[in-house]
Amino acid sequence: MPKAQLIDGKAIAQAIHQETAARVSVLKSRGIVPGLTFVRVGEDPASQSYVRMKGKKAQELGIKSETIVLPEKTSEAELLVLLAKLNADAGVHGILVQAPLPKHISETRIFSTVLPNKDVDGFHPVNVGKLLLGEPGGFKPCTPAGIHELLIRSKISTEGAHVVILGRGNIVGKPMAAILVQKAKNANATVTLLHSRSRDIAEHCRRADILIAAMGQAEFVKADMVKPGATVIDVGVNRVNDTADPRGYRLVGDIDFKAVSEVAGHVTPNPGGVGPMTIAMLMANTATAAEAAAEL
Amino acid sequence: MPKAQLIDGKAIAQAIHQETAARVSVLKSRGIVPGLTFVRVGEDPASQSYVRMKGKKAQELGIKSETIVLPEKTSEAELLVLLAKLNADAGVHGILVQAPLPKHISETRIFSTVLPNKDVDGFHPVNVGKLLLGEPGGFKPCTPAGIHELLIRSKISTEGAHVVILGRGNIVGKPMAAILVQKAKNANATVTLLHSRSRDIAEHCRRADILIAAMGQAEFVKADMVKPGATVIDVGVNRVNDTADPRGYRLVGDIDFKAVSEVAGHVTPNPGGVGPMTIAMLMANTATAAEAAAEL
Repeated sequence: MPKAQLIDGKAIAQAIHQETAARVSVLKSRGIVPGLTFVRVGEDPASQSYVRMKGKKAQELGIKSETIVLPEKTSEAELLVLLAKLNADAGVHGILVQAPLPKHISETRIFSTVLPNKDVDGFHPVNVGKLLLGEPGGFKPCTPAGIHELLIRSKISTEGAHVVILGRGNIVGKPMAAILVQKAKNANATVTLLHSRSRDIAEHCRRADILIAAMGQAEFVKADMVKPGATVIDVGVNRVNDTADPRGYRLVGDIDFKAVSEVAGHVTPNPGGVGPMTIAMLMANTATAAEAAAEL
Repeated sequence: MPKAQLIDGKAIAQAIHQETAARVSVLKSRGIVPGLTFVRVGEDPASQSYVRMKGKKAQELGIKSETIVLPEKTSEAELLVLLAKLNADAGVHGILVQAPLPKHISETRIFSTVLPNKDVDGFHPVNVGKLLLGEPGGFKPCTPAGIHELLIRSKISTEGAHVVILGRGNIVGKPMAAILVQKAKNANATVTLLHSRSRDIAEHCRRADILIAAMGQAEFVKADMVKPGATVIDVGVNRVNDTADPRGYRLVGDIDFKAVSEVAGHVTPNPGGVGPMTIAMLMANTATAAEAAAEL
């Protein structure tokens, strides 16, 4: 019997979706239809599934969603031309170029070509810079923004808390640190960022009041790496071989959920924790982009 | 007798200045005179002194330096017009607007108006974003970049080391964390960022292999907050009353230098540690800006 309280990402995401739907209604009542365009290059099955899921949710909320699929061999120049068109299209409030892109295309160049005020993914350097500087008006990357909302709405205070983040990726680890270290309400955390080159990882983890696992290693966080009562957030999605599963694999997170649940005070299930929040923040960002364009 | 080895910021800065002077010579031999323009608003005595010092060093290195002084009551709009002119002036490779600005002017707006490729101070959000993302081609803020050089040239490895940073300011603490946490040579540190809301500060500090004090509190870091053998970097410049001094005050750092020197393995003197490095990096950034403009 796990003692940790579950952080219900599905329910919290649902609450945010309802808020977003209400904002979309207000926009529509003023003649503005929020528009979100997905750009997908190639036929990566995971990307197909992500984009399909996000597009479906956008439709449900009243956001006009379009998906542009380009062949794997699309050149960077062609993609840049498409982005220039979308940047100039007043009906497109948010643009999401699904990563990963084929190797011959520079993600850095593509992500910094999307206009910052349409960059609902929050990956443009100017948005990342605003995030670290604590400046308002930028978009925050959806996964760390979603984790932040999970903590806020679960009333888990970060004020003065020691947050230890496993993984220094640009999608989760680094922006997560940037969000939580700010001098701001619902932030003000002491943040430690760990990664593959860190020493004494288990020891660092054991000191965390809030432990965020985002390094992409199956069940890396064991029970003895968690301080009793700590909050543990599981970001990872890893495939492990499983002959018992008809797909031949199953998906597991970065934490050993069963064992960690015996020790932690709060824990996110996975699936049903961080995943739904990423989509919720994307939709909320799109509403924000449309509101800003309409100067609402 | 202090046991810590001194990190000679003056000597290291001097070495960098020589490198910069050589780069300036190469530029001039190709007909390019690197230009650095300072903008100072009002008559803050510390700002006057900083700008004078930087301008003098620029001249010494062969950089064409100009200082534009505007009255305290200059409007934000007037300053923006000036920046637009400087942005468009091909002879100006670097622009430095000296902080602090008068309260009626938004530093955020001003710093984000300087063209990123002339932002030798490294405060434009796009440069800060590139820094956190680990993207090349941006300018790094001069003080943390200078500390980074101090460590590199003193052969103090950050690889896997636990770096604890006191202070989360936009000028030192946050960009310092961004530099050292990168997956890169001379980085790869585990970074903990502490600040005024952090709990157990002394305990965190005692765990540091490298402790960087940048919170602006006179002699805050005591000997018992330092792990024996650790490297301690003192960024602070604080005034404390001193009737024995003809000025009525003396300047002290964020560390209790004498006591810390008994425990630390390496320590920066102050003055003569971080201070000279800030100017050295500003000059190096200006050479870089001119080289980039000349496509060298």
